[in-house]
Amino acid sequence: MKKFVNDPANFVKEMFEGIYLANKDKLKWVPEYNILYRADLPKNRVVVMQGSGSGHEPAHSMIVGPGMLDACCPGNVFAAPPMDYVYECTKILAKDNDKGVLHLINNYQGDRMAWDMAREMAEADGIKVGVVIIDDDVSVTNSLYTVGRRGVAGNFFVIKAVCAAAANGASLDELVELGNKVNSRVRSMGIALTSCTPPAKGAPIFEIGDDEIEIGIGIHGEPGRRRDKIRPASEIIDEVFAAVCDDLPFQKDDRIALMINGMGGTPISELYLLYGLAAKRAEEKGLTIAKNYVGNYCTSLEMEGFSLTMLKLDYVIESLLNEPAEIPIRVF
Amino acid sequence: MKKFVNDPANFVKEMFEGIYLANKDKLKWVPEYNILYRADLPKNRVVVMQGSGSGHEPAHSMIVGPGMLDACCPGNVFAAPPMDYVYECTKILAKDNDKGVLHLINNYQGDRMAWDMAREMAEADGIKVGVVIIDDDVSVTNSLYTVGRRGVAGNFFVIKAVCAAAANGASLDELVELGNKVNSRVRSMGIALTSCTPPAKGAPIFEIGDDEIEIGIGIHGEPGRRRDKIRPASEIIDEVFAAVCDDLPFQKDDRIALMINGMGGTPISELYLLYGLAAKRAEEKGLTIAKNYVGNYCTSLEMEGFSLTMLKLDYVIESLLNEPAEIPIRVF
Repeated sequence: MKKFVNDPANFVKEMFEGIYLANKDKLKWVPEYNILYRADLPKNRVVVMQGSGSGHEPAHSMIVGPGMLDACCPGNVFAAPPMDYVYECTKILAKDNDKGVLHLINNYQGDRMAWDMAREMAEADGIKVGVVIIDDDVSVTNSLYTVGRRGVAGNFFVIKAVCAAAANGASLDELVELGNKVNSRVRSMGIALTSCTPPAKGAPIFEIGDDEIEIGIGIHGEPGRRRDKIRPASEIIDEVFAAVCDDLPFQKDDRIALMINGMGGTPISELYLLYGLAAKRAEEKGLTIAKNYVGNYCTSLEMEGFSLTMLKLDYVIESLLNEPAEIPIRVF
Repeated sequence: MKKFVNDPANFVKEMFEGIYLANKDKLKWVPEYNILYRADLPKNRVVVMQGSGSGHEPAHSMIVGPGMLDACCPGNVFAAPPMDYVYECTKILAKDNDKGVLHLINNYQGDRMAWDMAREMAEADGIKVGVVIIDDDVSVTNSLYTVGRRGVAGNFFVIKAVCAAAANGASLDELVELGNKVNSRVRSMGIALTSCTPPAKGAPIFEIGDDEIEIGIGIHGEPGRRRDKIRPASEIIDEVFAAVCDDLPFQKDDRIALMINGMGGTPISELYLLYGLAAKRAEEKGLTIAKNYVGNYCTSLEMEGFSLTMLKLDYVIESLLNEPAEIPIRVF
């Protein structure tokens, strides 16, 4: 294994330390629970948190800040956060704030269990907790670690919309309704060229041939629909675009947000090439791309691959996506 | 070769099409010369352009916009732009604008030749051209394709500073002086874990063992100082930090910008882990990190690796780095 790590057991902790040191004036860090939260935590509105396995950065540990998450509490690499991490994080957010805490949860059984138990513990303390489950991956129904569909890069849109609404004073009930609405309108599918190597495992999580691709890959290397041979990018986009588009379905005159999400190891040059191909498909279909996103949003460590996400907009969601945000990852 | 490409010969063109389609309202695209430029080109101030080989994205084709480059004209992957690309781009920028055009050039012989000739052609047309050469890589003096030092990720700081100054009305002479000043205060060094595969070559540009790293890698795979065995991240940072720090040298009480730049295939989790280690070295050395940058700025396609860049700030440069910008790559 060649990675920039020290002791693999400390990988997540040392990553968090780096995020914290790069944002000391903006974030607080609780090392024993993998918690990062805003130094200027809001007190007079609902607060929003997420945390799934680590290894999907920038989701979720690098998107805490005004306009995005108020806190995150990921687990170890590809492991749900333990229930006490979620519980501690919920308590931090609810301190001196009775407006409620929104839990955003990607649909994996490990996450569901940890967050369910943590919510019960928090509710026993008198904390109001709302829940939104994200399950945007059209690739397969049920998976290695999931009953129902998996939650993947579409979570970005749920996060962005509900966090903007929370900043603008939405109630806990309104946020749950909004989050469910965005989730119901967002669809994704991913393709892998290579596996990734979790530091603690020290070896690839699956084998794939030098001429093979996995169609419908999960973000933890879960199998998709099938293996295929590598093909021209335009043929790959044709299949992924159709699978995503037909699922909702997206229809002529729909106004959409289109995301090409990198899996971590794909150069952004290829992501923009894929975006160009997808944008032309969308135009042929009569869809209007009102917002576009190209880059790494929800990754699988250094996996080479991408996912395509489409969100059917309405004027409320589009306004929320246009709201400002300020997070650790930035361009200049 | 597994990549998201169609015909490798069209790789750069299709990438440019994707960038353009994602930013149709903000950019203009001249396909035959690989030129992207601002749709709202400034007319009453100096305009700034850069372009080196492609394959280093987001540099330079994804950083055209207000506050950053006014235009770019890269060549093919790891190839300098032909002189006529540079000349055509210069003419576009100088149309109805007599304030002058600034050429930012990374120090590679191929680039120097193309830009020199293009400048002469433009000057023969009566266009005022200023030149800043960037050569921040401390790894080696002279290299496969370079006399003197190579220009690598430090070019980001030159671009950001001079483009902010241009937006604020600096003259061509002032910009050349500023660019040279920033270049004289910025130092970089890179490490590679893996090679990359240019689409047209279809094979890695160098061989490297499963347990080997290249210390002082160039962004086109040029050899660095030596091969070594993979080591803990903290030992790698110790060596890179010392090499960069001792070169200027950076000294106690210096106020610096610190960048951990990904080479394209390194997960951002590892980049933040490296940042944390470097930030602690800087603190031990008595340096103040006033600005930090963690992410992909100047890459080598899908190479796994990173570079560390340090810039010695003064109040002028720091103010310029704080200026706003708006470019195709963005986070939300």
